[in-house]
Amino acid sequence: MYQLLSGLSLIEVSSFVASPTAGLYCAQMGAEVIRVDQIGGGLDYDRYQLTTEGRSLSWENLNRAKKSVALDMRTAKGRELVQELAAKTGQLITNVPEKSFLNHAALKAAREDIITARIMGWGDGRQAMDFTVNAASGYPLMTGPAEWDADTAPPVNQLLPAWDFICGAYTAFALLAALRHRDMTGEGSELRIPLGDVAIGTVANSGAMAEMLYRGSDRERLGNAIWGAFGRDFMSRDGKRFMVAALTSKQWAGLVEAFDIAPQVAAIEAAHNVEFAQSDHNRFTHRDELFAVFQGVADTLDYDVMAERLARAGTTFERYRTMHEAANDRVLVDDNPLFGQSPKNPSGFRYPAPGPFANMPQRERGAPHSAPYLGADSEEILAERLGLGTGAIGKLIDEGVVATSDADTLGTRS
Amino acid sequence: MYQLLSGLSLIEVSSFVASPTAGLYCAQMGAEVIRVDQIGGGLDYDRYQLTTEGRSLSWENLNRAKKSVALDMRTAKGRELVQELAAKTGQLITNVPEKSFLNHAALKAAREDIITARIMGWGDGRQAMDFTVNAASGYPLMTGPAEWDADTAPPVNQLLPAWDFICGAYTAFALLAALRHRDMTGEGSELRIPLGDVAIGTVANSGAMAEMLYRGSDRERLGNAIWGAFGRDFMSRDGKRFMVAALTSKQWAGLVEAFDIAPQVAAIEAAHNVEFAQSDHNRFTHRDELFAVFQGVADTLDYDVMAERLARAGTTFERYRTMHEAANDRVLVDDNPLFGQSPKNPSGFRYPAPGPFANMPQRERGAPHSAPYLGADSEEILAERLGLGTGAIGKLIDEGVVATSDADTLGTRS
Repeated sequence: MYQLLSGLSLIEVSSFVASPTAGLYCAQMGAEVIRVDQIGGGLDYDRYQLTTEGRSLSWENLNRAKKSVALDMRTAKGRELVQELAAKTGQLITNVPEKSFLNHAALKAAREDIITARIMGWGDGRQAMDFTVNAASGYPLMTGPAEWDADTAPPVNQLLPAWDFICGAYTAFALLAALRHRDMTGEGSELRIPLGDVAIGTVANSGAMAEMLYRGSDRERLGNAIWGAFGRDFMSRDGKRFMVAALTSKQWAGLVEAFDIAPQVAAIEAAHNVEFAQSDHNRFTHRDELFAVFQGVADTLDYDVMAERLARAGTTFERYRTMHEAANDRVLVDDNPLFGQSPKNPSGFRYPAPGPFANMPQRERGAPHSAPYLGADSEEILAERLGLGTGAIGKLIDEGVVATSDADTLGTRS
Repeated sequence: MYQLLSGLSLIEVSSFVASPTAGLYCAQMGAEVIRVDQIGGGLDYDRYQLTTEGRSLSWENLNRAKKSVALDMRTAKGRELVQELAAKTGQLITNVPEKSFLNHAALKAAREDIITARIMGWGDGRQAMDFTVNAASGYPLMTGPAEWDADTAPPVNQLLPAWDFICGAYTAFALLAALRHRDMTGEGSELRIPLGDVAIGTVANSGAMAEMLYRGSDRERLGNAIWGAFGRDFMSRDGKRFMVAALTSKQWAGLVEAFDIAPQVAAIEAAHNVEFAQSDHNRFTHRDELFAVFQGVADTLDYDVMAERLARAGTTFERYRTMHEAANDRVLVDDNPLFGQSPKNPSGFRYPAPGPFANMPQRERGAPHSAPYLGADSEEILAERLGLGTGAIGKLIDEGVVATSDADTLGTRS
């Protein structure tokens, strides 16, 4: 953890992926992120993968370095405590609907300059999730093998909940932008970030929407080939699959060298009266002939030989790994300073845990933190943030409004 | 555009997707983002889709609301001007390698408290792109139809450059975190954000890495079914494909109502002695039997009827659209306040353009801005930021170190 956000406290009332991610990034940069959950866990507390004891490996990775307060938000008192916490800290990340006790106006009444960052489904209020905004985006019907018939090909969902992760990072950015504005002007902000707008807005930002409108039709299905440049997956003699890509003249020259195909490439250039060295466009247009030449060489070489040649020529390539392989990869994980051995996960399972994506050579990264047990910080936060005494907190616990650490109970809801 | 970042200026020396996205998000929040490019355009200036005149629809969407300075960075004077601009503004977003004239130490020598945010390939310095880190992540070998044989199934690349977009948003976040730290302490920061770490770190943050290590093997291929919960694509009688998902008890109840399948669901519950209302786990475990019941109903209904029932029951669902359909969708685009008619794109092509993803009900969103012509702001920025006079700038133009707007030339490089 770096301490760039040291001194910043925020409340997170959150579930699933996007909203917890926004809090995670802030926590990994040194902010005090206080996640408030329903006693026994919110909607995401038992998301797969579960350990045999019922602890969610999803939850314990999306909530590292945070503090946890557990309240019964079905009671008026519990809801009041969350509102007070948000007002005291001054900033809230949430995916709870605007039509709830955490609506911006209610919080603003308690603190004029509050900042709320609220992740929504669609901008018009309809529910949405990563899976459903993805269906609307157009990507699933462009994904999959090039040889599939365009009229009957099924949609292929991306497995990465990409919209959630983009939305989470953007929300952390927008929150800091609003903080900067408040530092300058004293004004609070209400930010609403619809997951659906992140999706369709990204289609537009990438240029793909303009492309569809300009062409007046969909893009042809390309399988794993890169749109508008040279790149695809190939298979080595020993059956290893790898991706190569060339977006620059230098990268292209490296590929021609590594595959040792200068004469074949020259022959294709001559046949079509084009040159490939300087032109993404030409390399893309004649990709099928080029792909055949590349695969022809790959057919004759084992991957280790191929990889050595690709690395020596300074190309951009990567072997496809299964995720289990990736998780056990020395270079990707064990020797990567992004990861440290995580301390005391709630699950009791030990495995490498990541710190912040940003690497700051002049600062100490420190070890990654674990997620809290649910409610582990309830007493501390209520005392420090709201000034409640031991007696008052004890009473709230006795009444069932507040719960303390669930370390000795299973993570599943009753 | 909102003005949360009003008063902030930054230099962007950038290409492709991740790095321009970081600048885009800042520009859409009111920062002055000065993109500096090689005269004639950098490596990404002619990325697909190109118009018939050679203007890139990718470039003009990833660079909205920015200013453009065109310099010959192959000359010492051109490089010096970029270094001076970075030192004057105090912050730089780039994906230029650390081993270049834009290395942090050189810039810090010119300005002690400078902040640089540098997007890299892999953390250890090897080249990488979205396509190659994706191959390493494990996702492509989990993607595609469930019925594919695990031993021979090809990788399926996601078409969305998701790692680039996550990395871009994260970089914008990290830059603002460093700005906040400088505001508090006066200290600058060097941030390096490896695209590869964004990918493998996200695999870890999602819990999927812990899942692989806990299970000791890969996850089974699920096609479009949601991992650990209920959801999949179905097809209506009239051949429309749609995604439905239920992650909560309420959403599940809505689906059972919309599909009118309470008796069939009860029969499956009785046969296995389980209940579905409260358990993602049970709904996932028995998904195949449930999917058959759902598809059986979908077989009998046209999509419009199905959608009306799904909406009335408050479920989360979405029809798959092609991207061309999405781009022409009234609800997604034309009636969506995220979009405005874009003014004067460099391509001359007019189409809806998005503003910032965040919606701020209390502030004026304003119309989206267009991207600049390359070099359109060279003279203004050199005069205002570096205090150069008309004569000095004219001399730099005559020498070919500086270029002005390419409005009257094609966007392609010579």
